[in-house]
Amino acid sequence: MDDATNPPPRPAHRAAHGHRWDEVELRPYKEDERALFKTISRQILFSDPKLDGELRYFEVEPGGFSTLERHDHMHAVMVLRGHGHCLVGDEVREIKLHDLVTVPPWTWHQFRATGAEALGFLCMVNAQRDKPQLPSEDDLCRLRQDAKVAKFLEGKP
Amino acid sequence: MDDATNPPPRPAHRAAHGHRWDEVELRPYKEDERALFKTISRQILFSDPKLDGELRYFEVEPGGFSTLERHDHMHAVMVLRGHGHCLVGDEVREIKLHDLVTVPPWTWHQFRATGAEALGFLCMVNAQRDKPQLPSEDDLCRLRQDAKVAKFLEGKP
Repeated sequence: MDDATNPPPRPAHRAAHGHRWDEVELRPYKEDERALFKTISRQILFSDPKLDGELRYFEVEPGGFSTLERHDHMHAVMVLRGHGHCLVGDEVREIKLHDLVTVPPWTWHQFRATGAEALGFLCMVNAQRDKPQLPSEDDLCRLRQDAKVAKFLEGKP
Repeated sequence: MDDATNPPPRPAHRAAHGHRWDEVELRPYKEDERALFKTISRQILFSDPKLDGELRYFEVEPGGFSTLERHDHMHAVMVLRGHGHCLVGDEVREIKLHDLVTVPPWTWHQFRATGAEALGFLCMVNAQRDKPQLPSEDDLCRLRQDAKVAKFLEGKP
């Protein structure tokens, strides 16, 4: 990695304030016309040229959801706030505080805040990773053939 | 990495029970004669040949502390339970729930559970990393020359 593009070093200690952190920018996602994600924000907690992994915090408002996508890299997720449901492949699971979710390569996945509170989760990924692939109409059609998955995608898991 | 040495795949969803997890082994550290660490346990939450980072959870009983060490790889730490103090280089900081701590390369560091409750923290590291170096008597002597660091090392930060 080119040193000239390195971010400035972060202080050794960054205090938490609820689910915000000193020196960490909140990046709200815009609503997506195709309804691929809704009311989700992202904070990059650890990212450094010397780290081979990155740690991010995502927060989804009640009723919101992350992008339905798949990619070659893995996701290593820990719930940090609230509860909700996730889709990993053709499995729909209820998830709660501190639960762990592994998303294997090339597996469709989405996280939904199905409770009254926001759903917040940590996500560890490789610093070097491929871009996510979005589902085609055919992919969505295939996914919806499973009744459980169809209900999840409608927001009624 | 040789496929024959790969660990069996972990289930996509592993539930949390307090600060223990399904399918995650608790590895207690033995007490060390040189008093380099005390009453600390380790759980490896995410480790996979496809992940360039590893996520571990450490828990230190009240009065306990992690190993005083340094190494080339970085530590990316988030407090997940209780509060305490940490030493990073010559800085002593109070740390509380969800605070972030970055340990740069070759920086002496230690975490202490100085409260009435256990101190638990996540630690992200590179999957490929060097072995920690322990302090020599000379190193300890140099560290103790700073009054704040000396008090921290005595367990009275």
